Amino acid sequence: MKKLLVANRGEIAVRIIRAARDLGIRTVAVASKADADALHTRLADSCVEIGPSPASKSYLVTEAILAAAKETGADAVHPGYGFLSERAAFATAVADAGLTFVGPAGSVIEKMGDKVAAREVARAAGVPTVPGTPGGVDGVDAAVEAARHTGYPVMLKAAAGGGGRGIRVVHDEDGLRTAFGQASTEAQKAFGDGTMYLERFVERARHVEVQVLGDGSDAVHLFERECSLQRRRQKVVEEAVSPGISEATRDAMTSAAVNLCREVGYTSAGTVEFLVDDAGGDFFFIEMNTRIQVEHPTTELVTGIDLVAEQLRIAAGEPLRHSQEQIERRGHAIEYRVNAEDPTKDFMPQPGSVGRITLPSGPWVRCDTWLEPDGTVPPYYDSLLAKVVVWGADREEALARSRRALDEFTVAGIPTTVGLLRELVDEPWVGSADFHTGTLEQWLAERKETS
Amino acid sequence: MKKLLVANRGEIAVRIIRAARDLGIRTVAVASKADADALHTRLADSCVEIGPSPASKSYLVTEAILAAAKETGADAVHPGYGFLSERAAFATAVADAGLTFVGPAGSVIEKMGDKVAAREVARAAGVPTVPGTPGGVDGVDAAVEAARHTGYPVMLKAAAGGGGRGIRVVHDEDGLRTAFGQASTEAQKAFGDGTMYLERFVERARHVEVQVLGDGSDAVHLFERECSLQRRRQKVVEEAVSPGISEATRDAMTSAAVNLCREVGYTSAGTVEFLVDDAGGDFFFIEMNTRIQVEHPTTELVTGIDLVAEQLRIAAGEPLRHSQEQIERRGHAIEYRVNAEDPTKDFMPQPGSVGRITLPSGPWVRCDTWLEPDGTVPPYYDSLLAKVVVWGADREEALARSRRALDEFTVAGIPTTVGLLRELVDEPWVGSADFHTGTLEQWLAERKETS
Repeated sequence: MKKLLVANRGEIAVRIIRAARDLGIRTVAVASKADADALHTRLADSCVEIGPSPASKSYLVTEAILAAAKETGADAVHPGYGFLSERAAFATAVADAGLTFVGPAGSVIEKMGDKVAAREVARAAGVPTVPGTPGGVDGVDAAVEAARHTGYPVMLKAAAGGGGRGIRVVHDEDGLRTAFGQASTEAQKAFGDGTMYLERFVERARHVEVQVLGDGSDAVHLFERECSLQRRRQKVVEEAVSPGISEATRDAMTSAAVNLCREVGYTSAGTVEFLVDDAGGDFFFIEMNTRIQVEHPTTELVTGIDLVAEQLRIAAGEPLRHSQEQIERRGHAIEYRVNAEDPTKDFMPQPGSVGRITLPSGPWVRCDTWLEPDGTVPPYYDSLLAKVVVWGADREEALARSRRALDEFTVAGIPTTVGLLRELVDEPWVGSADFHTGTLEQWLAERKETS
Repeated sequence: MKKLLVANRGEIAVRIIRAARDLGIRTVAVASKADADALHTRLADSCVEIGPSPASKSYLVTEAILAAAKETGADAVHPGYGFLSERAAFATAVADAGLTFVGPAGSVIEKMGDKVAAREVARAAGVPTVPGTPGGVDGVDAAVEAARHTGYPVMLKAAAGGGGRGIRVVHDEDGLRTAFGQASTEAQKAFGDGTMYLERFVERARHVEVQVLGDGSDAVHLFERECSLQRRRQKVVEEAVSPGISEATRDAMTSAAVNLCREVGYTSAGTVEFLVDDAGGDFFFIEMNTRIQVEHPTTELVTGIDLVAEQLRIAAGEPLRHSQEQIERRGHAIEYRVNAEDPTKDFMPQPGSVGRITLPSGPWVRCDTWLEPDGTVPPYYDSLLAKVVVWGADREEALARSRRALDEFTVAGIPTTVGLLRELVDEPWVGSADFHTGTLEQWLAERKETS
């Protein structure tokens, strides 16, 4: 691998370029019109403008990206997260063009991207899954019949879904009959496929995910991340490792994730997501993300392993560099996603012109961002401004550094979520890690009422 | 400890304020007129202007600092490095004012600050010292007689000295007779004391120093730092741990440093400096610095221990929090001192107005600085702009990240040493760690000739 095209923008493009530089690989950035002067275009060795501002006309256009790779002589493509990163057809097109795709094969992306197929892989690997239908159900009556076996509450999910769309939780047969048609229609619209499946819904669930690396013939885990602090199923704060599971659960869950990777001969970095029942500690496979995750720095800070660099090495054909025994964790890391959103206006995105900024800095604070003073937050993309990631010798130290880091972070010109995140750090239930996937939304709702 | 006055400026004031914040301690900054709007004054909870710009009229005025502490109700004072940090009288004055001095007792500073007394402590602790006179020599004839026992080359040093002043290396008796008077006069002028002592001079010497922490009743080490890359006896690049000593030397040297601390009942963070003979690996005690060092972040990155926070805890009366067994190292860290100096003009300091800046950032890069865009580098103080500190799983990875980090660092408006440091990283003798305390100056001299 000599020259890497980074098929993404924002902080993850910057992150990937830095990893490539560390390995002595030259880099090509791509940019939409809105991003023509963005940080990632200047950090890369060269840059190609690939189209108009909306992602559908630039970052999501396979042909434009392949043309940019050809034009610049790039021999590999890193998709980052979002955009084309989990589109099997893109991975295949990159490979068909004679280039190295930094990620698993298209066939693996396809299999793990299909929720029903992924659950079958999990079962074959002996990984526990949430009680539910083995595949899509054939209409509302079949759904009602299936729910008698899984038991209520039940979660209705789109087989082709993602991002929380097409999902409904129902508590009884009446609710299921009402919701089924709506959810199926929504799924049809969003994904072009209205097939629904059913799962038992866990009331107080934690979202815990295991970071894995595979080279096709073997796989290792890099422990887990706790991602229960979510708003509308979007992660807001993540930590490594989870403060809410026992060592026994950790051992069982990380082994399960490695078994799953071996079952599919997984290549590259990936994340195996689990739902943990806070009551008994049982865990169930949810899905696998076949790409680098937004929250990957937390794992990097506790293990000392550069996940993006490992992706690049694996894509270049190198075997895994670490045995499981060599992967050790030290301390605790927490990531805060700072978004250009106004918490007082239901988190409405707030693109616009930015003035003076102060990024948090100093010991054990890492700020992954594309943001620069006097820059612009374009309205076309997600609202992530920066990831503030802190490390501490233990969780308490990490929380203390979180306060300092978030206090230092200022952005003039647009509202951000940094103040809200700072408030969050002081909440007793955050300090004691006594939360589940619904806790943050409850807190936000109560906060709104009292304000 | 509730409120800490930080009796310093620049990056170390910023660093100390951050550590205090992490511990929930309020902070008071002090500032000269030139620093009235500096970063450290804004990061602190409050700030007191203590006098005109020259340090002799502000940062070096004990009364002004004690008045600021009284005015703000501070109960502790951290001296940082430089300025008043190793003045025993200051530590004593702080204590006499009923405040906590963050550092060892004045009596310990005084003892370790006197080179002759410090060597006696070392000998009592069984720590090897460079062959030389036990104390000051009484005139040039006594010096010539003493040199017959230590052997040539011999280094003439001022008993009250520091910073390289009053030091001469002589290769024979004629040289000694010529240099003695000059050096003694220089010492008299610089330190008010012309007493000289003699030491055997080691040709190819490494400068390696051990980081220690003591609480008065026990002491531990945090491994060593390699500081051989120096210009005019000022460190330029430092690493943790030393790539140039064996594990056996490391064990012996760190034990010696701990023994020395126990001998004096050392309290706070300190550094025991050794000279290592590159030929045989023998090491000799040089001196002890009774304060935090500029290069402390390298040790922090490999051990995960916040040295400034430990200083504050120890000053507040807490015992050491880590047993020797609990202090582990991981990976390798390198620090680069970026100065506002022009390498093409014999490193002449370059104060002035700064325009746009880009600080290096991203994974495993820490930049400790006081520099801000559109700021000013005042002409009154040292020329340190920033410390770029990188961590890697091994030295090779740390060097690769050094390239990336130094490449990203840009400062508009004034010349800096960042380009020179970047060149240095690519030198084969840096990559192989084949250097001693004279190597950097040799390289600079050759570079000048060929340019």
